[in-house]
Amino acid sequence: MNFKQQLNAYKTQVEHALAALPFEGAPDKLKEAMRYSLLSGGKRLRGCLVLAACEAAGGNVQSALPFACAVEMIHAYSLIHDDLPSMDNDTLRRGKPTNHIVFGEGMAILAGDGLLSHAFEVMAAVQNENAFAALSIMARAAGVSGMLCGQTLDITLEGTQPDAHTVRKIHLGKTAALLTAPVTAGFTLAGADKDTLTAGQIYGENLGLAFQIVDDLLDLEGDAALMGKTLGKDVQEGKLTWPACVGVEQARQDAAACIDKAVQALKTLPINTAFLQEMALSTLHRVQ
Amino acid sequence: MNFKQQLNAYKTQVEHALAALPFEGAPDKLKEAMRYSLLSGGKRLRGCLVLAACEAAGGNVQSALPFACAVEMIHAYSLIHDDLPSMDNDTLRRGKPTNHIVFGEGMAILAGDGLLSHAFEVMAAVQNENAFAALSIMARAAGVSGMLCGQTLDITLEGTQPDAHTVRKIHLGKTAALLTAPVTAGFTLAGADKDTLTAGQIYGENLGLAFQIVDDLLDLEGDAALMGKTLGKDVQEGKLTWPACVGVEQARQDAAACIDKAVQALKTLPINTAFLQEMALSTLHRVQ
Repeated sequence: MNFKQQLNAYKTQVEHALAALPFEGAPDKLKEAMRYSLLSGGKRLRGCLVLAACEAAGGNVQSALPFACAVEMIHAYSLIHDDLPSMDNDTLRRGKPTNHIVFGEGMAILAGDGLLSHAFEVMAAVQNENAFAALSIMARAAGVSGMLCGQTLDITLEGTQPDAHTVRKIHLGKTAALLTAPVTAGFTLAGADKDTLTAGQIYGENLGLAFQIVDDLLDLEGDAALMGKTLGKDVQEGKLTWPACVGVEQARQDAAACIDKAVQALKTLPINTAFLQEMALSTLHRVQ
Repeated sequence: MNFKQQLNAYKTQVEHALAALPFEGAPDKLKEAMRYSLLSGGKRLRGCLVLAACEAAGGNVQSALPFACAVEMIHAYSLIHDDLPSMDNDTLRRGKPTNHIVFGEGMAILAGDGLLSHAFEVMAAVQNENAFAALSIMARAAGVSGMLCGQTLDITLEGTQPDAHTVRKIHLGKTAALLTAPVTAGFTLAGADKDTLTAGQIYGENLGLAFQIVDDLLDLEGDAALMGKTLGKDVQEGKLTWPACVGVEQARQDAAACIDKAVQALKTLPINTAFLQEMALSTLHRVQ
């Protein structure tokens, strides 16, 4: 299989696992609101990273599926809450009305809470030592020093003068944390050693930074119909973006440098990381 | 120590542990918003139940503290989100302005998300087998078949004709789930057997049902200044309460019957459950 075929195979596995989640005992309305956002497409990048990292380190892909689902649930929850009127106030996501537009704010908040809780429920149901360590990694990444750190800085600093150090910190939290955790958690599920985890951390952080820079560039220059969301909002709302800090050309170069760092980190490992390297390189193609 | 002294001793331990949580890496504003609600008093009933159950089953109280903190964080998160304008729209809680009144809606949502995430982070940091099983219990209780099931039914059915079966289901989710989990998780941390867990489940569910009935009665008849919150709101907003289903006198009797069931369940166990029994009985004193 080449990279694209492998990516599609992983993606299909993640999609099937997500669609099969029964959310047992949840009221119908809550299930509906959670599934609306969870099953609305998306690249499943985070879920695929869990599977790919686990497989690269010699683990079983099947056993990593609960964690692939969990990280996608955490991602979906973060988008639902992020889109709320009191946060980013977005009405469109992947070409569809956002969760609170369809289900109301109260249900959207509960749907987000439900997806976050269920992520932990699904991970905790896998009762073995590697799984516990992986759950802990996910918890830190989703938590107050990870994704929520980025989200908080993002909304509290909106409209202030962009400063490279701060913007980097926001992106490390908001984006990189939830791209790093799938890699290190996937490695952990396979029982990888410390060097592998360190390399996974460097890879994930740099992939995340590049990913966010590319996203910011696309918000400036992309095609709204193709992206399925309102564009130009970052500038309009004074969001702290990397291109706003360093200019478009430098931002483009920085993204490439991050991807290079990510790839180099993996090259030191004695395992087959070809897929993960390709994954990083493909991030750049979106703006090239 | 008598019951009250023991309760105070547990409560003090929980308070100290909560106040000492560093929330490392969290932005100051997020820490402030989380601590505002987490450290605003309250009976710490859920945290005390974890410690008491763990100790009753022969476990180490110290090792149960992360779980006592976790359940209090989950409880605090649920109150913050529940008070939001798009949910119950409450402006007063324990005599203080609610989180979103002080920090704004966006920060209140993030503070709730932060407390929920941090609960799992703190539990997951205890890496042993009993802790994993206890984390799983907490996840289910906080999740879509537990607390969030109750919350969803509560907001989607508001204003409809109260029906005993539905109201019981709401209370089992909204209130009993997060009073049962501390008991079964506390027992689990001590490595308790299946019979003990089953008894803990019956105890917790009945304690929870009684607790909610008593709360509903106090909302009808209590003293606003003493309670530190707006009263009479349940009736005003057409909330589905037990007294509204069966009448005040019957509700009072039902609460007593639940407490009796809770106490009887524990009496079958070959461990010292005197404190937990007293805890159940004390719930009734609030309306007697």
